[in-house]
Amino acid sequence: MKLIRFGEAGKEKPGVIIDEKRYDVSSLISDYNEAFFADNGLEKLNFFLDSNPTLPEVGGEVRLGSPVARPSKIICIGLNYVDHCKETGAPIPTEPIIFFKSTTSLCGPNDDLIIPKNSKKTDWEVELAFVVGKKASYVEEAEALDYVAGYALLNDYSERAFQIEMGGQWAKGKGCDTFAPLGPFLATHDEIADVNNISMWLTVNGKKFQDSNTLNLVFKIPYLVHYLSQFMTLLPGDIISTGTPPGVGLGIKPDPIYIKEGDVIELGMQGLGSSKQVAKAYNK
Amino acid sequence: MKLIRFGEAGKEKPGVIIDEKRYDVSSLISDYNEAFFADNGLEKLNFFLDSNPTLPEVGGEVRLGSPVARPSKIICIGLNYVDHCKETGAPIPTEPIIFFKSTTSLCGPNDDLIIPKNSKKTDWEVELAFVVGKKASYVEEAEALDYVAGYALLNDYSERAFQIEMGGQWAKGKGCDTFAPLGPFLATHDEIADVNNISMWLTVNGKKFQDSNTLNLVFKIPYLVHYLSQFMTLLPGDIISTGTPPGVGLGIKPDPIYIKEGDVIELGMQGLGSSKQVAKAYNK
Repeated sequence: MKLIRFGEAGKEKPGVIIDEKRYDVSSLISDYNEAFFADNGLEKLNFFLDSNPTLPEVGGEVRLGSPVARPSKIICIGLNYVDHCKETGAPIPTEPIIFFKSTTSLCGPNDDLIIPKNSKKTDWEVELAFVVGKKASYVEEAEALDYVAGYALLNDYSERAFQIEMGGQWAKGKGCDTFAPLGPFLATHDEIADVNNISMWLTVNGKKFQDSNTLNLVFKIPYLVHYLSQFMTLLPGDIISTGTPPGVGLGIKPDPIYIKEGDVIELGMQGLGSSKQVAKAYNK
Repeated sequence: MKLIRFGEAGKEKPGVIIDEKRYDVSSLISDYNEAFFADNGLEKLNFFLDSNPTLPEVGGEVRLGSPVARPSKIICIGLNYVDHCKETGAPIPTEPIIFFKSTTSLCGPNDDLIIPKNSKKTDWEVELAFVVGKKASYVEEAEALDYVAGYALLNDYSERAFQIEMGGQWAKGKGCDTFAPLGPFLATHDEIADVNNISMWLTVNGKKFQDSNTLNLVFKIPYLVHYLSQFMTLLPGDIISTGTPPGVGLGIKPDPIYIKEGDVIELGMQGLGSSKQVAKAYNK
């Protein structure tokens, strides 16, 4: 299945994509949130769709929201691509580097990117995210995929000065509003032939900056579920983003390139669709 | 007002403390959550209580939950006490150090502390937390206190090996389940004479380890609201914890002291009550 949420920000309704068409399932499902995933919502929805119900179609012009509702947490993995490590000359980490993104950064896949006030170094990061399907605590790696509901495209926007130059942890530069466009849709397992072989790309104003494949992931999803669940309980609907490949603005030689007002950022992953954000300056 | 939540974990009901007695207000309020604070819930509740309603009393033996429901985020401030900086020899930060605590770490003030599997360095941190009362983005310092709903006692438990020795950011050691007991209650502004002059203490097995006062805060609450709101939108019900004074286990000379199974941790702040956690080993 491919799940979407559509409509005005904060008032999204749940939908599905079937044969490239979008349908409204809000008569059946209240939202794709913790309760939905915890209550076997995916299975129920699948069963319902198998009965070939007549569903209202969603208009082509509607705004898409994040395909899942605000989760209890968004966890990101740092420096998780072999080719990115090579590029930067950093050693391949022996354990996953993890950090949180503020859940208030979550937005729709094609929403405008708002460059924060006083930002000079807003940067992009195409990433494969996955969504937790059931409560996970101390999960064995062999069983970890049972805890994954599905996959989605994420742009892990990062303000590098806020992240690195203002003291302490990365939190300041990772959680700004609109810094986590997710989607266009959440794809369940059956939609993805091999999650460890998905190509991905990102362009800015049409020029390709990122071009890699999840083949290059240092820590793959089963290990990440196992590892993260040693430190905290993952809840249904939680979003985990697996890290970015080379080609972010910060890494460009000889001079880094950052996002300016009016820039158009497009990104995509094989089987997970594409998204597009237009950069706007903050304006109250 | 003093707000409490009481009952079984995950099914807490809202209540209030009036003249040392606890009353159930669940007939009026569904929960102390984002919607409650956003919808002027505090003002409405105050108005209601002023009419001297007859309310059911809450039994003395009931479990207390966190006085606010799970928020969109828990933000913590690092190295924010002058005396703590002096003790560790660290320079006083020129900007607040911030990090997130997983919202799944939130629990009741007297719930057991669960020492995570494989933990050898679980540590304590008494802190003054405040709760956001309304949506805050780019707030001026002079207006910042309008965005604060109230104050509560927090123990910012931290696993030092997870936090510091396992690569990358602090996230692994700060967000373990039961690592954020909050309460006993949330005190609104009118309950606290001077938030910049509140004494606080923490004991382990009756021995005092922390003993300070918010007089020693480097960055005070109005500045923190202003500062944090430059990086992300703070939502009603969000919890911000302002940092810990000297006396954590990690800092003890010549050898650090960490929490063992059976240890009893008690902490309190003037006007914000006290809490008590008993350390248990993780046992599935």
